[in-house]
Order: sequence, then structure tokens, then C-alpha cells
Amino acid sequence: MDIRSIAQSAKEASINLAAFRTEIKNRALVEIALELEKSKNRIIEANRLDLERSESENLALPLLKRLKFDHDKILETIAGIDSLVKLEDPVGKILAATELDNGLELYKVSCPIGVIGVIFESRPDALVQISTLCLKSGNSVLLKGGSEARETNRVLAEIISEATSRAGIPKGWIQLMETRDDVNEMLKLDEFIDLVIPRGSNDFVRYIMDNSRIPVLGHADGICHVYVDDEADIKMAVDVTKDAKTQYVAVCNAMETLLVHKKIAGEFLPLLKREMDRKKVELVGCSEVVKIINVDAADENDWETEYLDYKLSIKVVDSLQAAIDHVNTYGSGHTDAIITESKKNAEQFMNLVDSGNVFWNCSTRFSDGFRYGFGAEVGISTNKIHARGPVGLEGLLIYKYKLFGKGHVVTDYAQQKKTFTHRKI
Amino acid sequence: MDIRSIAQSAKEASINLAAFRTEIKNRALVEIALELEKSKNRIIEANRLDLERSESENLALPLLKRLKFDHDKILETIAGIDSLVKLEDPVGKILAATELDNGLELYKVSCPIGVIGVIFESRPDALVQISTLCLKSGNSVLLKGGSEARETNRVLAEIISEATSRAGIPKGWIQLMETRDDVNEMLKLDEFIDLVIPRGSNDFVRYIMDNSRIPVLGHADGICHVYVDDEADIKMAVDVTKDAKTQYVAVCNAMETLLVHKKIAGEFLPLLKREMDRKKVELVGCSEVVKIINVDAADENDWETEYLDYKLSIKVVDSLQAAIDHVNTYGSGHTDAIITESKKNAEQFMNLVDSGNVFWNCSTRFSDGFRYGFGAEVGISTNKIHARGPVGLEGLLIYKYKLFGKGHVVTDYAQQKKTFTHRKI
Repeated sequence: MDIRSIAQSAKEASINLAAFRTEIKNRALVEIALELEKSKNRIIEANRLDLERSESENLALPLLKRLKFDHDKILETIAGIDSLVKLEDPVGKILAATELDNGLELYKVSCPIGVIGVIFESRPDALVQISTLCLKSGNSVLLKGGSEARETNRVLAEIISEATSRAGIPKGWIQLMETRDDVNEMLKLDEFIDLVIPRGSNDFVRYIMDNSRIPVLGHADGICHVYVDDEADIKMAVDVTKDAKTQYVAVCNAMETLLVHKKIAGEFLPLLKREMDRKKVELVGCSEVVKIINVDAADENDWETEYLDYKLSIKVVDSLQAAIDHVNTYGSGHTDAIITESKKNAEQFMNLVDSGNVFWNCSTRFSDGFRYGFGAEVGISTNKIHARGPVGLEGLLIYKYKLFGKGHVVTDYAQQKKTFTHRKI
Repeated sequence: MDIRSIAQSAKEASINLAAFRTEIKNRALVEIALELEKSKNRIIEANRLDLERSESENLALPLLKRLKFDHDKILETIAGIDSLVKLEDPVGKILAATELDNGLELYKVSCPIGVIGVIFESRPDALVQISTLCLKSGNSVLLKGGSEARETNRVLAEIISEATSRAGIPKGWIQLMETRDDVNEMLKLDEFIDLVIPRGSNDFVRYIMDNSRIPVLGHADGICHVYVDDEADIKMAVDVTKDAKTQYVAVCNAMETLLVHKKIAGEFLPLLKREMDRKKVELVGCSEVVKIINVDAADENDWETEYLDYKLSIKVVDSLQAAIDHVNTYGSGHTDAIITESKKNAEQFMNLVDSGNVFWNCSTRFSDGFRYGFGAEVGISTNKIHARGPVGLEGLLIYKYKLFGKGHVVTDYAQQKKTFTHRKI
């Protein structure tokens, strides 16, 4: 099938899927878990082929690690499905209800978005995770995984499609795309696809944003800041910045730039450097920083760079306002933290920094759907509409208005024979 | 100033505006109302220039009527501001709160989107309405009105800018664009502008959607359906379809296509025709319709056309499912109604029709922010993300996550020294 037909059948399936009862969707999830359990050997065998081919193609070691889908990973994935079954059905919730007039009642009801296009990289467990999230929320899904995982992805998609079909879910709801051309084709199909979620490299996300009319949920860069205020607890500042920079460097919520108030820089920076040296973090700094500690000079590029590595840029600022301005100019609207003992300064920072996640006295690394307690994470968004920050299941939902009448016509209200009551119910 | 500088200054203003207290925003709204009252003569004089020029340029009579901004319109506009002052501030609401661990608290807090670009046609009162909605919700706004209203719009924008500036709101928050080139320039500025709301002709809305990376809130077509089920109350069906088609033909929520179940068509269509003839509505129908009543044949184009006029296309369908399929194929996701005495059929229609507004036994003309009791309407959206259907103030809002800690670091949780509590607070 060509991508257009695939997308069309996903759209058709999504219409019915939107109205499926919770029990049927949960039964389908249980079927997926059972089938994954039964097909362990088949999955591991397919994954072995991917691993062998990728090794012979000299795929980098961290990517090989992410590609691996072994016994433990399968069990972990099944456990994820089990907890998804237990989550409340997000569809069909009454978000608001108003009596417009006697016998004329308006309900705002949550419903699925429709068809979601998801593009992810090497990890095959992402395929299971995202498709089960779509199923729980009543959405169809078009998936494109990394080509290095193609055998594993094929087997997983087949297992999910068959298991859910047995539970009565229309076949077209889950579809696999296999090539970059498929993705390019998909990006044109805004008549069938309602939302694209790219989980990949920054360049790739930006490419998608630039080449589609379909709304995109995601984030390109993650240039996160920690600002150490002049009223900071110095020891806390060292601990939090160490965690934000080094706990895991290759992720979007790791700190890339540290801002330090000039009044505290002389005391704080040498302590910080000692910790960063221990962790082998390369430091670059503005002209004020290089006067205090022995590091290379940063240039304008450094403020705009997401290193995703053991490297940190540092800037001394004259004021809280200067810190806020720097974050709003160079940040990516992802996650930014202030370290201070002043509640007033913290409030000002958190209100004026235009980011999805603004933190006081804690590490940027906390911005994550699981740490936030969402139970499931669709992705992290730096969008300014729909969903922002770590996005749980609710990011896959929208609502519709249902109006129940008894033959009501607008003419009666235009002619003032009747008036609206607008009473909350 | 060029459009880029204008957009940049609007962005800068939006950062501060986001943190303004309710009292200041309300005081600024009151200042606008007072200044409009004081400047009545100046506004009417500017509007007279627009009317004279437009008349000499042979602007169509309905457009001239919409352009007119007289004493009564000004009072109506002021009354609108007074009720907006009374509305609850939508910014700073706590949407969710979770204790992640002892002393680590997460709050999801509503906040403005940032900078909104609004493009509207002839009515100058739209300028006041949309800019005061943006102010109440803490957003900056770039406005482009119809060129026929340029003198009136200039005076209104100046009045609003000066009145709000006196109340302490940063000057850049409201800006006027004057040419189509300005708009084209704005559509490129996705770094400064977060959302575009076009309120104009379908072609224009589509042009904007095709020519910008900035998200668009709005609707192109409004192809609304009424489906008369075989279990409909015939008299109610006639009354509702008459209202949906003729109460006001030139609006997006007027019915354009009527679907009739074959079992009821023989009885219903002659009654409908009598009513439509009285209202001088031109009818076109499918091959089954022309066998029952004397009307011209419809072609495929008719199902896709928003007449916005005294014209209606009619199709006989074999089943409820066929009606649903027709609406999902040809509809625009705006508003669609079923007339039936069967609760089961109504539920099926409302669940499976993929539109922002799905109605049972009432006219499509009810889908409107004021009739829904929103107090204010930003526009009507057929988007599948962010905001759908009639959009009130909440369409101008997003949220941010605020995390309050006491030096918390992720390392402690990764090393299982601490565990998350994830307790709702």
C-alpha cells in the first residue's frame, strides 16, 4: 500500500476507534501484552538480525545499546502496558457542562485527536510505548522507526496489529512506515494526519517543522539554564548545577549554560570548577568568568549551543533581570532553574522566564513525564499551544462540544422570545 | 518601524505582560473604555472618512454596513469591555499540583501564549474586541484590519495604546499592521509570533495556513450538515432545518447540506420544500431527491461548497452510517446535527462525526461563543489540537510547569536513595 492509502485507512480506523469503550481498548492492550510474552523468541531473533547487521555496519556503541531488545526489555515493556491498562481512560471525560436554556444542554467532552504520525530513533521499545499510548487514547498511529531496527519493528508492529485485531480494533489503526521517502510523503497528508510527534535529533525535528502543514508536537533544542542568584545557598548551587550538568549529559533537560550573579561569582565559581574538574567537564566562560577561574573564553555561539556533552558555558550577569533576558534570548523554552533563598527573586524568575518548565532550587533534570508522575510520556514539547513541557496522555486528546436539544432554534433567541440561562450543570 | 522590530517589541512587552497583576490589567481595560467614551467624536469622524472613501470606491452595501462604527456601536463596544473586566483572570490558575517528593512540589499554572497575530476584515469593533481579549489574557497583539477601515483602526489602536500605557502596560503590546505586505512579513516571524488568528474569507485563511510556520487558530470552510434520521420528529426536522439554513445565511455555522434518511424522505422533503420556497432558498438534490421533489440535480461539487447564501444541497442516504460517512468525507469539522427521537442513533452520530460541534435536535446556528455562554469569543476553530469549536479566552492561554524544591537533585532518585511520592496536593 502507498502512504496515502495507509494514511487514509488509519483515518477511517480512527473514526471508529474514537468511540470504542474503555473495556475493549483495555482488552486489546492486554492482548498485546500476552502476545509479546508469547512471541519473545521471535522478537529476540528479529532483534538479533538488526544487531548483527548494525554491528557489521559499525553503528556506534551507544546506539547498539539502545537498539538491543532482550528478555528484560520485553518484560519491562509488558510492565509498561500493564500500568497503562490501569490508567483512567482519558476519552469521554466531561470537561465542562452548561445548560444554555431549558432542555438545551452543552457538554465539552474529551476525545482523541485522530491520526498521529510518530517518528522515533533506534529504540524498538518506543514503538510499543507510543502505539499503546495512542490506543489507550483512541488514536490511530503511523510509525516510523530507525532503519537499524527494521526487523524488530516489523515483528512488533505485526504482533500489535494482530493482537488488537483479535480484540476487535479495526486493522488500519496501526501502520508502519519504513523509509525516509515514506515520511516525506506522510508530511504532505494533512488531510488525514492530525499531529506529528518526532522523537529524534534536533536537525530532524526542525526539518519536519519546516516541511509540513501538520502541527508538530516536540522540541528541537534543549538549551537549559541554571541561574545562581546573589542570594543563593552556595553549597546547594554547587550540588544542583553538578546534577543538572553531569547526571546524564546526552539529554534535552541537561543544563548547557550556567548564569552567575556577579556578587557571588568570586566565591561560587572556584567551588564549581573543582566539582566540574572531577567530572571532567570542559568549561568555557565570558570575559568576567575567565578573570575568576582558569577556563577558555566562550563566544556568542556557545550561548546558542546544545552540547549534549561534558561541556558547560558560564556567564556572569549583573542582575536577576539580566539573567532572565539571557534565558529568554538564548534559551529554547525548555527548562530553566534559579537557585536562590529569595522567594521574591524566585517568583520573578519563574514568572518572566518564558519556558515550559521553570524551577526553583532543584535540578533541570526533573523535567520529565515519569518524574512528574504522569504515568506515561508522549514527549517533551516546547510548543506555545496545545501541550507544553513533558506531555502525558492528555497531549493526544482534544475535545468536542455535544449539544443536546429538543428542537431548539436560534430564531427564538434572535427574536427575544427566549433567553439563554447559561447555568453550570 | 519595520514589521520585524514591531514583532520584536511586541514579544518583549509580552514577557512583562504575562506577569501583570489582574488589577493592573483590569485598570487598563477601564482606561480603554473611558478613553473610547471621551473620543467618540474623533472615532466617528475617522469612520466617516472611511465610509466616504469606501462609498466612492463602490464597496458593497453589506460591507459598508459592517464598516460603520457609530455612537451605538461605540457604546456596545464599551459594554463589551465592562463585561470583560468582570470576567475572572484566566492567567495564573493552578491547573494541577503534585508533590513529587517531600519538599519538591510541581504546579501546572495557566499563562499567556505570548504574541498573537490577528487579521480581521471590515468591522472596526473587532479591533477593540480582540485586543481587549488579548490584554485580559496577558498577550501582546499584532493587528491587521481591513484597509477600508484604516482611519478608524488607526484611531482605535492609538486610543487603546495610550489608555493602556497610562495604566502602566508596556507600549509595545499592541501594534497595527497596515498592508498585505506587512502581513506576509509577519507570517515569517515565527521566532516572535506564537499564534495567528485570521478572521476573514476562506481563501485568505487557507493562504495563511499555507504560508506560515506559525500555528493558526481558525477555520477555513464551514460546511455544516443536518441529518434527518428515519426516527426524526418530522415537524421538528422542518423547524430546525429552516432555522439552520435561513436564520442567517452568510455565517459559517449555517447549514449547507441536508441529509435525509430514505425511509422518511418521501414524507419530509415536500414539507421542507414548502418552507424553503417561502424563504426563497434554491434547492439542489441527489438523484433520489429529484424523484421526490421538483429541484435541480446536485453534482459532486455541491457537497463541497459553502454557499453562504440562500441555497441548500440535499442528499438521501440509506442509513445512519452513510450519513456519518458523508459528513466525515465532505464536512469541514465545524458543526453537524442529527434530528432523531432515537437516543442510540443520536449517540452514534455524535460519537462518530469528527467535528468540533455535534448537535442533537437543535440548529447548527447555536455553535457560537456567546450562545455557549463563554462571555467572549476569540474565534471558531476547526483545528484538531489546542482549541476546537467556539474558542473563548482559554484559547489564548497555555501553561507552564513550576517546580519548587529545596536543593533536590535527580542523582538521589537515580541511585534510589530517594523515591517519588507523586501525591496530588
